[in-house]
Amino acid sequence: MATNPTVLAIDTSGPVAGCAVLKDGRIVHQIAMNHGLTHSETIMPAVDGALSAVGLACGDVDVFAAVAGPGSFTGVRIGVCAAKGLAHAVGKPCCAVHALEALAMNFFGFDGLCCPILDARRGQVYCAAFDMAGGMPVRALEDAAEPLPDFLARLPKDRRLVFVGDGVPVHAKAVLETLGSRALIAPPSLRDLRADAACVLAAQRPDTWVDAAALRPIYLRAPQAERERKKRAESSEYSGC
Amino acid sequence: MATNPTVLAIDTSGPVAGCAVLKDGRIVHQIAMNHGLTHSETIMPAVDGALSAVGLACGDVDVFAAVAGPGSFTGVRIGVCAAKGLAHAVGKPCCAVHALEALAMNFFGFDGLCCPILDARRGQVYCAAFDMAGGMPVRALEDAAEPLPDFLARLPKDRRLVFVGDGVPVHAKAVLETLGSRALIAPPSLRDLRADAACVLAAQRPDTWVDAAALRPIYLRAPQAERERKKRAESSEYSGC
Repeated sequence: MATNPTVLAIDTSGPVAGCAVLKDGRIVHQIAMNHGLTHSETIMPAVDGALSAVGLACGDVDVFAAVAGPGSFTGVRIGVCAAKGLAHAVGKPCCAVHALEALAMNFFGFDGLCCPILDARRGQVYCAAFDMAGGMPVRALEDAAEPLPDFLARLPKDRRLVFVGDGVPVHAKAVLETLGSRALIAPPSLRDLRADAACVLAAQRPDTWVDAAALRPIYLRAPQAERERKKRAESSEYSGC
Repeated sequence: MATNPTVLAIDTSGPVAGCAVLKDGRIVHQIAMNHGLTHSETIMPAVDGALSAVGLACGDVDVFAAVAGPGSFTGVRIGVCAAKGLAHAVGKPCCAVHALEALAMNFFGFDGLCCPILDARRGQVYCAAFDMAGGMPVRALEDAAEPLPDFLARLPKDRRLVFVGDGVPVHAKAVLETLGSRALIAPPSLRDLRADAACVLAAQRPDTWVDAAALRPIYLRAPQAERERKKRAESSEYSGC
């Protein structure tokens, strides 16, 4: 394995569609699009543009990283499938990057906890907390899908906290009212997941690289279709049908 | 003036050519290219791509921001001239964003000083330090062009320090050997200037917006051509020619 691997990272797990290339320890290309367009239409031209721009063929990439969730069910599948397809075609490994951890990378070295909050609909946020004081993210609270006040109540009282993610525009006011001055809100330039952070995480963890076939999405809740099927099955059971 | 301005930011001041669009308080598009290609060829297609992707015409942009230096003399002129041209064409203002301050934005909220170091050639770095503890950068040390050891000697002894910029790959080892564990080195994903940070700085400072004609580069040293001319003039003086 390359000591300084060439990484292509794809992220379509949230409102932003992005890709980035890490080569020789530098981010040589990065694009982030938050246009409200269908990620399935935008991501492959972006990947193609990135590789052409830096003069790489798919076979030159050492690992294909995908932000594998938690996030939008459809979005996560688009990114994971794109990375799987590219990696399978050239016989290279994949790496599943955790969306909340990649978001926390925006606050590398922050002397406190980075708290990503993603809009999970149904009155919930996908959330977690990472201790950033040493540089790279160190898990402080496990992933959860829960109402924002429940998450805020679980956070330690004696640390500075910085909030990132697409839940920020909706929830910043409530966060600041609840936590006061020890909470910081990420500025727009550090608020969203960037594929370059996913490149760095994938490069640092070759032990997590897997065969393309083994790449899996990270879900915190069952998709809506499955929840509805389960509900129908349960109500059928109770009604005796 | 719009309370939530639409900003197009252009950066060609260093090895990365980038542009970004801030709209409704969100970064809706961002591209960063570190391909070693001529910025004069890459930047305008990138700007055009950004505006088309988000469905904006030049006239929809409230302010055109350029990273105005310090940095590569030619690079700075390309970015400044591109912003000037676009702004002049549609009668909108420009904003000169300081390269070292935009770099420091990568460490918003860091409990210490962010120290951008840019390769200034001739054994020097362009450098400065910003206190990031309150969030946005607050100037701690003025800009300088000096050898790295001189800069490190001027830094306060009682603060955490994080180093960013294109000088990092060359100087990281010397920084860590001199400063030990209170120095952090930015990971590749937070090392380079990103145009989205320039968008945020421009949006927050409408008092610094100027007419396109008044946009000026920020130089810390006279360009090489001027230095050589001055040297020739001095030696002519001394030789009595």
